[in-house]
Amino acid sequence: MKYVIGIDLGGTQLRAVLIDHDGDILAYQRTDTAAESGPSGVIAQIDQLINQVSAQVDRQQVLGIGVGTPGPLDPFTGVVLEAPNLHGWVNVPLKAILEERTSLPVHVGNDANAAALGEWRFGSGRGCQDFIYVTISTGIGGGVVSNGKLLLGHKGIAGEVGHMTIQTDGPVCGCGNIGCWEVVASGTALARGATAALQRGHPSLINDIAAGGPIEGWHIAAAAERGDSLAQTLMRREGELIGVGLVNLLHLYAPERIALGGGVTKSMALLEPYMRSIIAERAMRPYQDAVIELTTLGDRVGVIGAAALVL
Amino acid sequence: MKYVIGIDLGGTQLRAVLIDHDGDILAYQRTDTAAESGPSGVIAQIDQLINQVSAQVDRQQVLGIGVGTPGPLDPFTGVVLEAPNLHGWVNVPLKAILEERTSLPVHVGNDANAAALGEWRFGSGRGCQDFIYVTISTGIGGGVVSNGKLLLGHKGIAGEVGHMTIQTDGPVCGCGNIGCWEVVASGTALARGATAALQRGHPSLINDIAAGGPIEGWHIAAAAERGDSLAQTLMRREGELIGVGLVNLLHLYAPERIALGGGVTKSMALLEPYMRSIIAERAMRPYQDAVIELTTLGDRVGVIGAAALVL
Repeated sequence: MKYVIGIDLGGTQLRAVLIDHDGDILAYQRTDTAAESGPSGVIAQIDQLINQVSAQVDRQQVLGIGVGTPGPLDPFTGVVLEAPNLHGWVNVPLKAILEERTSLPVHVGNDANAAALGEWRFGSGRGCQDFIYVTISTGIGGGVVSNGKLLLGHKGIAGEVGHMTIQTDGPVCGCGNIGCWEVVASGTALARGATAALQRGHPSLINDIAAGGPIEGWHIAAAAERGDSLAQTLMRREGELIGVGLVNLLHLYAPERIALGGGVTKSMALLEPYMRSIIAERAMRPYQDAVIELTTLGDRVGVIGAAALVL
Repeated sequence: MKYVIGIDLGGTQLRAVLIDHDGDILAYQRTDTAAESGPSGVIAQIDQLINQVSAQVDRQQVLGIGVGTPGPLDPFTGVVLEAPNLHGWVNVPLKAILEERTSLPVHVGNDANAAALGEWRFGSGRGCQDFIYVTISTGIGGGVVSNGKLLLGHKGIAGEVGHMTIQTDGPVCGCGNIGCWEVVASGTALARGATAALQRGHPSLINDIAAGGPIEGWHIAAAAERGDSLAQTLMRREGELIGVGLVNLLHLYAPERIALGGGVTKSMALLEPYMRSIIAERAMRPYQDAVIELTTLGDRVGVIGAAALVL
């Protein structure tokens, strides 16, 4: 029996997992990321998590460690070039550092690609040759599996599914592009739309639910569930915009299956009818039979995917 | 020495070529497609072209025949499901028919994918692992090479680059989707934009150049070259819209190189500054160094690509 360790390095949370070859979880740990302590503090946290999740097995039975990280990195050298929301992470040779500390092979990968890999090997995409995982939360990211392999492209930077323009004359995205799927359809975009409507004086339950704090996606979903008209309009548009981006992915990559994850998809019951009607109206017929469903790995898709980087 | 025959089956023209392993052309034939004569008439034309281009070599030296066809087909069985602009082409078992007539192996493929394959093996994309060919003419099509292979996707229908939405609330495309790159940036779209502006009474040289006939893309380019203000505005917008779609392809597929062909790109001198400034403004930095250039195979990219289906 051989095991693999996965680490999901996020700006707010750090997750670790020990899985076997079937993706079954033997140990799981989650902690708040000590982001302000810089790379050395966070790496010490990772080190500790590795020891915790692997305590029950012989180290020689562990094949390696996979780490999913946000932001640009060099997947070949395992150097994290920059990690958004993590203080001081510039050109950190994470692979080299962890290999020295643990004496295990370490693979560092983009977190969205890792999640796609996890969902493909152990979740919704199991057995598919052509599969896409999309996460819709603060931003929109994902990974593409084509012909049984992760689509990497030149320099390993393909599959930035959130950064395709779907509104040529739309708002400016954080990436510098205009009208990206992310800047019009992420959870952040949904909240921004609500905030703007409320500032224009539109009456809505959203204000009550947010209770004076900044509007978040789930406030809008909760108001929509209670019949609020503005919130329902916003959720309808959100579902449609998710659908528009998915149609593009169907036409461009022809996946057999797409799995959706991330915070916004927790309100799928509200979004789904609109998302699906856009796909039914807009996708060309041969693409209509692609299966589109929620991640079957849930919140653990990222950390299981990180482990899958080793396999 | 071994040779390959390529056939480019178009609605208006039929081209045939005999090439060697280096893509060098030994024989070339072009004729008007007898589209009104139905599949049997056109297949007789193809048969004749095959005999003409292969007359100078021993048939045993010919490895096979590749045929590029428009519209949906089954690349595995070589059945043309439907060919737009070709009368009566429904479920034509083209591979089986030509194999029986010629006693040579026949490969039938999508014409845009074939062109991409040709440009990749023998043109601009030679030596690239990640490459895209885009043709911008009546419509927008193309093919994607990823990790040294044609990106096919489930059912072989990936890479419909012309049918990604870049204007969510834009015009309806012939494919049924809304605001596709094709419906806003093809030569047809350019001509439609000009026609609409002229009907609104906008003064322009375009009218004089078109001399009362329907407006075509080259009329607009010719007027722009002569300093016509409306035509220059239209060409500027066309260059920008080409750029918007190319940015999407960079972010989604991360090609090392993109080659452009098709009638609209004959006016590249007018389009290029606007196309390139959109890419410089909008593409994320790591994607900026992709090389974007005109096809080096020119008008023969389709027929050479058809031959490349065999290799």
